[in-house]
Amino acid sequence: MTAPVEPVLGFRFGAVSAGLRKDGRIDVGLAVADRPCTVAGRFTRNLVRAAPVEVAAARTARGLAQVVLANSGGANACTGQPGLDAALATTQEVAHALGIESELVLPASTGVIGALLPAAKIVQKVPELVASLSVEGHSAFAKAICTTDRWEKVATAKVGHGAKLLGIAKGAGMIHPWLGRFVPESSLGGHATLLTFLFTDAIASARDLDLALGEAVEMSFNCASVDGDTSTNDTVLLLASGASGVKASVTELKEALIPVCEALAESMVKDGEGSQHVAELTVSGLRSDEDARAVARTIATSLLVKTAMFGQDPNWGRWLAAAGRAGVPFDPRAACFSVDGITIVKDGLAVGSTAEVEAKRHMTQPRYRMELVLGAGPGKARYFMTDLGHAYVDVNAGYRS
Amino acid sequence: MTAPVEPVLGFRFGAVSAGLRKDGRIDVGLAVADRPCTVAGRFTRNLVRAAPVEVAAARTARGLAQVVLANSGGANACTGQPGLDAALATTQEVAHALGIESELVLPASTGVIGALLPAAKIVQKVPELVASLSVEGHSAFAKAICTTDRWEKVATAKVGHGAKLLGIAKGAGMIHPWLGRFVPESSLGGHATLLTFLFTDAIASARDLDLALGEAVEMSFNCASVDGDTSTNDTVLLLASGASGVKASVTELKEALIPVCEALAESMVKDGEGSQHVAELTVSGLRSDEDARAVARTIATSLLVKTAMFGQDPNWGRWLAAAGRAGVPFDPRAACFSVDGITIVKDGLAVGSTAEVEAKRHMTQPRYRMELVLGAGPGKARYFMTDLGHAYVDVNAGYRS
Repeated sequence: MTAPVEPVLGFRFGAVSAGLRKDGRIDVGLAVADRPCTVAGRFTRNLVRAAPVEVAAARTARGLAQVVLANSGGANACTGQPGLDAALATTQEVAHALGIESELVLPASTGVIGALLPAAKIVQKVPELVASLSVEGHSAFAKAICTTDRWEKVATAKVGHGAKLLGIAKGAGMIHPWLGRFVPESSLGGHATLLTFLFTDAIASARDLDLALGEAVEMSFNCASVDGDTSTNDTVLLLASGASGVKASVTELKEALIPVCEALAESMVKDGEGSQHVAELTVSGLRSDEDARAVARTIATSLLVKTAMFGQDPNWGRWLAAAGRAGVPFDPRAACFSVDGITIVKDGLAVGSTAEVEAKRHMTQPRYRMELVLGAGPGKARYFMTDLGHAYVDVNAGYRS
Repeated sequence: MTAPVEPVLGFRFGAVSAGLRKDGRIDVGLAVADRPCTVAGRFTRNLVRAAPVEVAAARTARGLAQVVLANSGGANACTGQPGLDAALATTQEVAHALGIESELVLPASTGVIGALLPAAKIVQKVPELVASLSVEGHSAFAKAICTTDRWEKVATAKVGHGAKLLGIAKGAGMIHPWLGRFVPESSLGGHATLLTFLFTDAIASARDLDLALGEAVEMSFNCASVDGDTSTNDTVLLLASGASGVKASVTELKEALIPVCEALAESMVKDGEGSQHVAELTVSGLRSDEDARAVARTIATSLLVKTAMFGQDPNWGRWLAAAGRAGVPFDPRAACFSVDGITIVKDGLAVGSTAEVEAKRHMTQPRYRMELVLGAGPGKARYFMTDLGHAYVDVNAGYRS
């Protein structure tokens, strides 16, 4: 994930420490395009939305943006009007320093809910932040948005005929994305604190970006879970500078966005708080992809499955029991389950202890595949999930202290 | 839960070790009524149903039963036709020994999924099991059905004018009951391995038992969760011997069943694998009780909430974020949250650190109340939940080994 990154034309990045984090790490990142970009976004559908989500979603809806201002050290969620004022004041200060209108600046925050964004601390640092901007600054930007993340998350791809895509993300806990367009009046559901910023130098309309991003998000972030808990702050933004001079179609955008979003989603799950094992779970044979996804999501968030993974125990009854409570019809007698291709359940029954011993051996690895077939229907889904062990408890029982 | 129990007339209980458990503990329990009883039941709505659930549900539907045959040491789930044959063979042997028809014997199993019931081991022990029957045998019966339970679960109540009710239960993990009538063709949903057997000496029709049991289950087991995982084996049975000669109305039955089921549900949650803290969570102010229950269920199964409880940290943003992803409409700006009456969130905003310090002090206790008010609507729910800490991981990462 940290391979050398070719510059995406038309963007510069920077970061500073504004003292938002107790440990003094850099905690505010800035991404600036040379001129206004077309933009698309996806945001948490949690009913409890952070102030920066409200601001960024409203501004993204115009289809134009030039700047991303992102911070760790506090989510600025459940902070009421003072929180909204702080989000507006910081974007205004950045806009002023850059000589652009505030509406082009998109804020994003991550950290503890209830922590009001200390606007004055950021405002004071804006000159330093702007001075830090460089074409190579994406790594500092990626660091600045980390919270419990153990590493920065960066992925790149080529777009169509010669344009580029750079993705920068954070996320390790409160990761259960279910991102959608921002529709306040019907925003029910739930996701997780992931921030993902995607920058391309392709030429593309805001509408095309939106179509491609929607599909990529469905196939990646919305099929990944660390803890089943959806954040108040989840934000995915895609800005297109057009600086490469290369036009990209929706298909070309998708072909670039999907692998980048998948790589970032898998990196988040791998970095899931306390995670020791990542599984790529596929569920198939159901009526529809939606049904398959519901089963995958139920398995991926099952505590008994996650602790069995931690214990490296192919205790397959837990997988089947989770599938059975997903609210999706299937015939348990048709169930087949395998780990890295080793079948341990066939036609709903255990294959035997030799196969389980072999599967157990594969479950000692940091990454493996699990495949559940529940019939002969066309519906299938792929999902990234983690185990749950002692380290998860340690990270989350003491996060605020 | 282990106060001296007055005999419920018309029932005898016994237990033996049939070698189903590796540790040699007693593992098969038998409850026998002097004559056929009226009966009602509720069963897991998990699509993956254990063989004993199939058999017991079909037999309960007739409204008549005389015997409960329950074992730990194996769930007899996902065991196909051999599992069904084993369930039938054991109930047949018991029926034969007692000189009654097999259809009057209701089986129930708990333990690891995929473990075929070793019918021969049980059949061999039936004479000893029948010989062990006594009016005071309920405690041995309660012990025989325990798995990871740290204590037996027994509760009693008076029914109407002089009848009695005795409840015996087990449950510590895979506890997320969502019990319903057994409707194979529409059985979608999910629950948890709880076994609860309720014996009354009141006179009541099977229909009245069913009405009263349905309501009591909704208010107790279906509002309790240890780990969010629903078992393939959840079974609640209510048998009425009529031996007291006292008729009980539906209301009188409910008045007895509700406190007994609540006490048993709370005992299960308190005994939740690795649990150190139990919270009685109330959610109110929503459109309907159903909405309130959906919010409570989402909070009760949130890993971030459960680890915050383990960390004794009133990190209230996790509660609000969980509520916000429950799929239920409310205005976050109206949210109030308190721990043991200490308000830490008012009108969607933090009250301050003094209140949080005080709330934290209460969260060191083994049991406390948490109250979330989300508006002025009439909908409310009460839910029993636990924390999640290292002991949970230890119990579940190594359960089979």
